[in-house]
Amino acid sequence: MLYLVGLGLADETDITVKGLEIVKRAERVYLESYTSILLVDKKKLEAFYGRSLITADREMVESSSDEILSGAEDVDVAFLVVGDPFGATTHTDLVLRARELSIPFQAIPNASIMSAIGSTGLQLYNFGQTVSMVFFTESWKPSSFYDRIKENAQIGLHTLVLLDIKVKEQSLENLARGRKVYEPPRYMTAAQCAQQMLETEHERKEGAYNENSLAVGVARVGAKDQKMAAGTLKELCDIDLGTPLHSLVLLGKRTHELERDFIRAVAIDSESFDKSWQALSSLD
Amino acid sequence: MLYLVGLGLADETDITVKGLEIVKRAERVYLESYTSILLVDKKKLEAFYGRSLITADREMVESSSDEILSGAEDVDVAFLVVGDPFGATTHTDLVLRARELSIPFQAIPNASIMSAIGSTGLQLYNFGQTVSMVFFTESWKPSSFYDRIKENAQIGLHTLVLLDIKVKEQSLENLARGRKVYEPPRYMTAAQCAQQMLETEHERKEGAYNENSLAVGVARVGAKDQKMAAGTLKELCDIDLGTPLHSLVLLGKRTHELERDFIRAVAIDSESFDKSWQALSSLD
Repeated sequence: MLYLVGLGLADETDITVKGLEIVKRAERVYLESYTSILLVDKKKLEAFYGRSLITADREMVESSSDEILSGAEDVDVAFLVVGDPFGATTHTDLVLRARELSIPFQAIPNASIMSAIGSTGLQLYNFGQTVSMVFFTESWKPSSFYDRIKENAQIGLHTLVLLDIKVKEQSLENLARGRKVYEPPRYMTAAQCAQQMLETEHERKEGAYNENSLAVGVARVGAKDQKMAAGTLKELCDIDLGTPLHSLVLLGKRTHELERDFIRAVAIDSESFDKSWQALSSLD
Repeated sequence: MLYLVGLGLADETDITVKGLEIVKRAERVYLESYTSILLVDKKKLEAFYGRSLITADREMVESSSDEILSGAEDVDVAFLVVGDPFGATTHTDLVLRARELSIPFQAIPNASIMSAIGSTGLQLYNFGQTVSMVFFTESWKPSSFYDRIKENAQIGLHTLVLLDIKVKEQSLENLARGRKVYEPPRYMTAAQCAQQMLETEHERKEGAYNENSLAVGVARVGAKDQKMAAGTLKELCDIDLGTPLHSLVLLGKRTHELERDFIRAVAIDSESFDKSWQALSSLD
């Protein structure tokens, strides 16, 4: 049996009791290491689970899925994914491959940022489609996120923006020379996201949002030191929410006063917040 | 401290290790019993947790929240919620009240249908806003869900439809006579949802969808006997997915072929599915 086990968002104790039982008894246990990270390292997970974990990087999952699935028609193989197992599309591929090989399969759901973002107090019913923000380079600044935010904004919905992580990346030079030397991991901050959003609006000028638009930056959702800050995109450009992972929510105009009460408590500047909230809720 | 602990979706072992530790040591443990249910009963939870649980119905949470919070500035109080703690707005109220009383608070996230629906193979990025469907009566057939589905459909997004549950409801007669006699619980099926959707389209005639629109009915997501069926709304009107809880996803035109591969495996009728998929993906 192939088990896709969600690990939740913060630390080793966020696994479910059901998931932990599977990890303890599986023949092999893989840890997916490239779409998201927990806030604790692999050694801590191994100590808590009482198992050694095989790191599964993007290359392994995308080109050696049969190695992961090997023997899974007879023995249990656990594939651990931070958050919920179906948050990232790559895992859908793995399940389809298992199905082709007639390997039975079960997913063990867990918390995902897509629902845990409700801990901002923003109502999940008021969210439109989720978008991703990648690190811009000098020559590559993809703005498809902008079109989707605009669609959400036109209906009045919030947008959850998930932020890029870069792990096991090679520099262009090392890549060209075939040297398996990797850059230190990088995690986008809420401030970088706000900056890139304003850069894109400056470029596109379609008014999907502007520097006075209200947003909430969040860090380490689900952890004890979870942190949030509500303010305009301009204010968020300078916010420091500490260590990864960060996300950002751009507010839509279809809001509820309970939402305001909740996020006002984390306003960067209450006066500016009230002004921006007033502007938001009076949009046509 | 007030802890809002998510229980996940299926059974007693879906609680996280972190959540279980809190339940075991809390002074009082409440079980919220009206926005969703687990697939196992309270006795089974009590046996597994080693604790007795206080049932918190809607009336208690909405009008006696101070009773729940009593003493929580000094002792730990756990409030258990099926799914993720912030799935339903009622719990936002409870947290705001705790904040007013200066009671510290922590949420323990868990799986929610809003992310676990990814186990259909439909990509979470392709979902628009989530809607709720209530049981229609002769005189009350609210159709605000229709406007929101229409907004999603115009952008090409999927819509997750969450289905009504009625627990501890009184008949009009018992209500009028002040008799605390409750009707048996009712849980809407995917078939009933499809029927009500078509009834509303028949009434509104705005073409948000029609009887040939593709949808996926799901039951007991996250459980071992999870069940799914993909077909047209008309086909789904007759589908029997077994015991609760059910949900339904109406497909948008912005689809990916991986999504098709995944859900085609649960098609009610493959030929009809292929035809409807073709029609869906060729919409402007």
